[in-house]
Amino acid sequence: MTFDGFRPLDEKSLAEYIKATPALSSKLGGKLDHLQIKEVGDGNLNFVFIIVGSAGSLVVKQALPYIRCIGESWPLTKDRAYFEAMALKEQGRFCPDHVPEVYHFDRDMALIGMRYLEPPHIILRKGLIAGIEYPLLAEHMSEYMAKTLFFTSLLYTTTTEHKRAVAEFCGNVELCRHTGQVVFSDPYKVSQYNHWTSPYLDQDAEAVRQDNILKVEVSQLKSMFCERAQALIHGDLHTSSVMVTHDSTQVIDPEFAFYGPMGFDIGAFLGNLILAYFAQDGHASQANDRMSYKSWILRTIEETWSLFHKKFIALWDENKDGNGEAYLPPIYNNPEVWQLVQRKYMEDLFHDSLGFGAAKMIRRIVGVVHVEDMESITDDSKRADCERRALNFAKMLMKERRTFASITDVVSGVQQT
Amino acid sequence: MTFDGFRPLDEKSLAEYIKATPALSSKLGGKLDHLQIKEVGDGNLNFVFIIVGSAGSLVVKQALPYIRCIGESWPLTKDRAYFEAMALKEQGRFCPDHVPEVYHFDRDMALIGMRYLEPPHIILRKGLIAGIEYPLLAEHMSEYMAKTLFFTSLLYTTTTEHKRAVAEFCGNVELCRHTGQVVFSDPYKVSQYNHWTSPYLDQDAEAVRQDNILKVEVSQLKSMFCERAQALIHGDLHTSSVMVTHDSTQVIDPEFAFYGPMGFDIGAFLGNLILAYFAQDGHASQANDRMSYKSWILRTIEETWSLFHKKFIALWDENKDGNGEAYLPPIYNNPEVWQLVQRKYMEDLFHDSLGFGAAKMIRRIVGVVHVEDMESITDDSKRADCERRALNFAKMLMKERRTFASITDVVSGVQQT
Repeated sequence: MTFDGFRPLDEKSLAEYIKATPALSSKLGGKLDHLQIKEVGDGNLNFVFIIVGSAGSLVVKQALPYIRCIGESWPLTKDRAYFEAMALKEQGRFCPDHVPEVYHFDRDMALIGMRYLEPPHIILRKGLIAGIEYPLLAEHMSEYMAKTLFFTSLLYTTTTEHKRAVAEFCGNVELCRHTGQVVFSDPYKVSQYNHWTSPYLDQDAEAVRQDNILKVEVSQLKSMFCERAQALIHGDLHTSSVMVTHDSTQVIDPEFAFYGPMGFDIGAFLGNLILAYFAQDGHASQANDRMSYKSWILRTIEETWSLFHKKFIALWDENKDGNGEAYLPPIYNNPEVWQLVQRKYMEDLFHDSLGFGAAKMIRRIVGVVHVEDMESITDDSKRADCERRALNFAKMLMKERRTFASITDVVSGVQQT
Repeated sequence: MTFDGFRPLDEKSLAEYIKATPALSSKLGGKLDHLQIKEVGDGNLNFVFIIVGSAGSLVVKQALPYIRCIGESWPLTKDRAYFEAMALKEQGRFCPDHVPEVYHFDRDMALIGMRYLEPPHIILRKGLIAGIEYPLLAEHMSEYMAKTLFFTSLLYTTTTEHKRAVAEFCGNVELCRHTGQVVFSDPYKVSQYNHWTSPYLDQDAEAVRQDNILKVEVSQLKSMFCERAQALIHGDLHTSSVMVTHDSTQVIDPEFAFYGPMGFDIGAFLGNLILAYFAQDGHASQANDRMSYKSWILRTIEETWSLFHKKFIALWDENKDGNGEAYLPPIYNNPEVWQLVQRKYMEDLFHDSLGFGAAKMIRRIVGVVHVEDMESITDDSKRADCERRALNFAKMLMKERRTFASITDVVSGVQQT
């Protein structure tokens, strides 16, 4: 893979690029000489431009050959844009209501042109920090996860199609490797990139690095992450990869996508909601104690899994006579065995999700990249209290995940921490 | 992938092919006009030629575009020869003592030229039927499995190298799919290809097709087989894929190779030894009651796992500071945690092996392809008795595998059946 055709764009050169690219210019109406272009990328990895024309708008995302928030010292292939574009198209095919449409992809330029998620869309994490309720969030996210995970699993696809797609996404190895390092390794050892609210959490971070049982659990999760090609997963499904309004939920940024364990996506989303919950006390004020908002987060956690479970099973039932080769109808040919295999499948997936969710929480407290939910709590001592409770819950969850029988038990556990 | 250059060879055209191929002709000495060529393939899938020249010998194996023992009605890509050649080279690199050397590979012709395993090498299964003891078998097979599985796992390789190799072997999907069907699906449903010793085992076969618990277990094993890229596995490691003399053990025919769960190889070998054990009563005579030979088989089962365990752990310890990214030394940095992760890894691998071993046994009794160990028992009633005991043990083993703490327990279970 060569990138001879690559050059990083700025507002000016992007305007020229758009004029020369009908798939983009056609979305903007006439008067291409008066485009409004603004670079807005606040993420960790890429440039993001919003382009507004006389009769339309779009977003252009360009990957750079390093991690933007760290700098050129941490190189990262810009071919991730290829996998992001492929994932957006696949996920959009299965769940168009919650995935922005891709208008254009240029592999050499590592550039994706896609729908602009216009205001009042904001990053979900910002909404969670602001204490805004999204009544359809659980409904929409469960829909997104059920559809994208089910339709790319062996429950729906043939072995032949599955292996072909697995092989293709093996190419996204550099991003998988990065996740493997920052989620499953760095937090459990001394690493130059790790940080935490010091000195408050010094002993807590040290305790993570000394916890043999936790290390055994995280090794199992890492193996599953590296070895198990269960479905096409988003790979980075935290609350900054979701844009929301009161009525709309859109999942963006699947550049870490590959065929991995479904629980990694579900866990990422639930784990980040739990982090948001534990951060609320740091955002409480006399005017708003956030008690009611905390209840809404817990309800959303519970509903996300419950609805996911319901929708996933419904898709499975609807498609049981399809091309999927995992559970052939002539074998699973009576209601009792059908229920048994579905129950086992969902139980394992639930426990995987809790394990991965816990890993994602831990790495956000003692690893390299933290969450704004916590970082925006300005009082160090108060932030450390919130983080410690989240950390303790996550450690317990990872170790004891197989003893949780239902999402209600998990929510009770969060409340009691 | 096109095969424009393919033509099936016979003795005559093979002689011309060898003359035109220095990598082959150089192994045979002069006088190429007087080669002895004999087609000896008794397997299920391919043509195998033995070529003896004035000063050397070799084997040429050519894949056909269908399953030889079933016929053109069951097509199967001849590109499997490519994966067989790649696997032989990889496995030979890590374990040259127990893998025949590849001299030549021609992808268009689906043709491999390799070392001829000269007499007294025979197929291990034939030796087991004849009641011959191989004192080094456990030592050699444990060596082969430990090296080929360890060195192709994430315990030894980088994530980058692993994903590249996984992607490459995803191309062998047609053979994986075939295995998935005949091992994990067909025996559990009505299938035109299934057969068994009728009428004696009619009810036993029916019981397999009615056993909900067994079906749940086999679904889990099938998922692991299809989804988990743990190491480069042989993929068909039964006792007809091994050639032996008193001193030599050579593993052949890895055309089903792909990145899958290690337990599938270990289970295939152990499961076929257990089948050989249960067949012995059918081969007993007044002159030889086979009691001592049965003890040898049980000892070999026990030693194969025990030695595998020992060698695998030794390789892991020796290479813990290498490139493998699964267990980083700065995390697993004290003897206690090191022992904990190794114990967990080996315990899971043991239970996986028992599950896959049981699946391989079941499919050889009520599925499409049976084993000569049983088929060579001419008395139907006697054969059915042997098969029923094997089947009952295998069903129990698959369901209860997680309760077995050691290989000694498994061997006791075999003895008590």
